Amino acid sequence: MKNILKDRNIVGLHMIGDLQNCDPTFLSSLKVEDLKQRVSLLIKMHGFIELGSYYHQFDVGVTGVISLSESHVSIHTWPREGYVSLDVFICNYTKDNSQETKLLFNDLTKLFDPGKIIKKEVQRYFKNN
Amino acid sequence: MKNILKDRNIVGLHMIGDLQNCDPTFLSSLKVEDLKQRVSLLIKMHGFIELGSYYHQFDVGVTGVISLSESHVSIHTWPREGYVSLDVFICNYTKDNSQETKLLFNDLTKLFDPGKIIKKEVQRYFKNN
Repeated sequence: MKNILKDRNIVGLHMIGDLQNCDPTFLSSLKVEDLKQRVSLLIKMHGFIELGSYYHQFDVGVTGVISLSESHVSIHTWPREGYVSLDVFICNYTKDNSQETKLLFNDLTKLFDPGKIIKKEVQRYFKNN
Repeated sequence: MKNILKDRNIVGLHMIGDLQNCDPTFLSSLKVEDLKQRVSLLIKMHGFIELGSYYHQFDVGVTGVISLSESHVSIHTWPREGYVSLDVFICNYTKDNSQETKLLFNDLTKLFDPGKIIKKEVQRYFKNN
């Protein structure tokens, strides 16, 4: 499959989220199987293809890395700190996925109901002119 | 385990790399099992704990997401474009891992011998004052 985008220098958009002021009780009660099911559903809803994943339940908190045809999603929860780190990196191999990337990121943040979100949008490049 | 760092607001350092001008022939020949073995060894050498991973071999290129006790590593190769995306996100839960994070990132970049590296250092925060 060839890269059919006009601007071949842009790999895709990487959304980085520090989700702060989440409810520690909710984060503590969150189980891997619940999170996995919700995340997979959102990935599918937004038209991306999950290849596989690895999730782990800590004594306190969960962590998950999800491999997509279009790159990856990662989630780490820190219940004591009311914090979740969220990354959504989606490549543009066959079309510009930037808007859908933002929508998936937003839907994933809603799973954790954060009081505050520190968000960064990082464009990734094949080549920098 | 409690967070014993003085500055409890810093989660950790996230290193983002766009590895450009890699050898397409080398990237095309790279197999998941080789990459997995090399990456796991470097993670261990730098004192981090791999919990598990998911790797996938595309027709052209490989992708891997690696779950660590200290957060994650992700790698996606694009042989045709001579490009690799590399992320190393290491938290500071029990100590400041920033220097070791940079060393792991540098060692991982060497696996791909890129002609050019576009590097971003993103501090992640529990709280932003």
